[in-house]
Amino acid sequence: MVELDRRAELINRRLEELMSVYTEENAAHQLICAEAMKYSLSAGGKRVRPVLVMEFARIWGDSEGKAADSACALEMIHTFSLIHDDLPCMDDDDLRRGKPSCHKKFGEDMALLAGDALENYAFDVIASDDKLSFEQRVKLIKCLSEAVGVMGMIGGQTVDVRNVGKPFDAELLLKMYSMKTGALIKCACVMGCICAERYDMIPAAEEYAEALGLAFQIVDDILDITADEKKLGKPVHSDAELNKATYPAVFGLEAAKLRAEELTEKAVSVAEGFPDSGFLSELTKYLLKRDY
Amino acid sequence: MVELDRRAELINRRLEELMSVYTEENAAHQLICAEAMKYSLSAGGKRVRPVLVMEFARIWGDSEGKAADSACALEMIHTFSLIHDDLPCMDDDDLRRGKPSCHKKFGEDMALLAGDALENYAFDVIASDDKLSFEQRVKLIKCLSEAVGVMGMIGGQTVDVRNVGKPFDAELLLKMYSMKTGALIKCACVMGCICAERYDMIPAAEEYAEALGLAFQIVDDILDITADEKKLGKPVHSDAELNKATYPAVFGLEAAKLRAEELTEKAVSVAEGFPDSGFLSELTKYLLKRDY
Repeated sequence: MVELDRRAELINRRLEELMSVYTEENAAHQLICAEAMKYSLSAGGKRVRPVLVMEFARIWGDSEGKAADSACALEMIHTFSLIHDDLPCMDDDDLRRGKPSCHKKFGEDMALLAGDALENYAFDVIASDDKLSFEQRVKLIKCLSEAVGVMGMIGGQTVDVRNVGKPFDAELLLKMYSMKTGALIKCACVMGCICAERYDMIPAAEEYAEALGLAFQIVDDILDITADEKKLGKPVHSDAELNKATYPAVFGLEAAKLRAEELTEKAVSVAEGFPDSGFLSELTKYLLKRDY
Repeated sequence: MVELDRRAELINRRLEELMSVYTEENAAHQLICAEAMKYSLSAGGKRVRPVLVMEFARIWGDSEGKAADSACALEMIHTFSLIHDDLPCMDDDDLRRGKPSCHKKFGEDMALLAGDALENYAFDVIASDDKLSFEQRVKLIKCLSEAVGVMGMIGGQTVDVRNVGKPFDAELLLKMYSMKTGALIKCACVMGCICAERYDMIPAAEEYAEALGLAFQIVDDILDITADEKKLGKPVHSDAELNKATYPAVFGLEAAKLRAEELTEKAVSVAEGFPDSGFLSELTKYLLKRDY
């Protein structure tokens, strides 16, 4: 999707700028940590989360890209979670998007520290963003830290690693999805509203994000079962091999397809209610109507 | 030191309150992560950093304990760094203050996540602290994240893990100390000034903290060589066994003792210049004039 790529490129450029504060001059002895951070930050990915931050801000009146640094902060959090998820004590993945994962490239110690440093730098970037008021920065940090913590992403990872191979009921699966992937996606849309100072639009942003987040996860689960490995660009059937709980495993494949369909319609219909929402509607369809 | 213990107890109580937000009701499935966080947070330690935050705030006019949550946030950061430092891919320590380290008790995956969650919760706690203005909260988060990141604590850990067994020159050793342990101690004293809105006192706080931080580290190094194991409560000669660079190893034991003496005098003399500084002066002497 051309417009998504164009916007992702803006994020990539700003991420590079934010990482360029660490140089051979001021950080010679610890530059390897910054290199590991940059390596994983630039390893690709569609930049869906930061693009959502910027798009919600734009829809609600930010014409100056005030949300750019908040968007980058959220991508740093996402990247930190991928680095730590890939570690041997977690999912033990040697590859991430076809490249060696951070710990394969830099060692486990440096992957641990690079993840820690990205998590920390995300908050630094928001606190330092003087395009925004102090109140906005505090609200953004609160929103982000709640999405990351025990009640959000890290809580979801806890459920995930501690329940492999155990029977998942429907309630626990939905709870895990809403924490592990849903929380950051919702946070992205809410952060956009905060950057535009449209606190009144947060409930609608959350409604959209909840549908998008769950649909995105279900579509991922379905593709892992039905997709062609070459087309998907990553191994299929990996969930079943790892004995992981998924939406199709708990509810059945047909029910999963139906639910993905419903949620996609819901997300698109909420998006279409927003002003000037052409790109957001297109993005939503692009993310959810993948081949399966 | 009775007064230090009394103040540490106040910190302990507030830490417990802050951790009590995670309950069987709202976090049943991920409670193990919160348990691991609590385990390491309550594993003891003198609480020097949070006590410094509160004391600098008190000296400069905070009579209501406005700095308590910032103090707890800093202790969460310190604890997260200890949990990750103990992991097998870092120092691989099975014990921390005589108890099993977090990963020995809860598994490596949970220690990783508990550390991540404490790092994140620290920023949440400051952002949520409505006893402070938005401006104060942003300044505190900026101060803390700079102390934690690539130019601070994590940078120091990077130098530490990547230079084991290599020759350290004096400059690199001092740089590592100022990042690895100095940054958080300096941050503690500066955070206290921010909580009291006495930004004019930050330079003096930094002057005190730099002397205290380096002296504290040198005294630790000396004790590792000269102390009686029973008296110290932890194994001695561990630095030499690990082939770690230390102040005495680089500068010699006598020079180390002399420098510790000078820095202690410096820190005490700066402290004595502050109003109502009886406790701070006593604390400084207590921390630095340990037996060796």
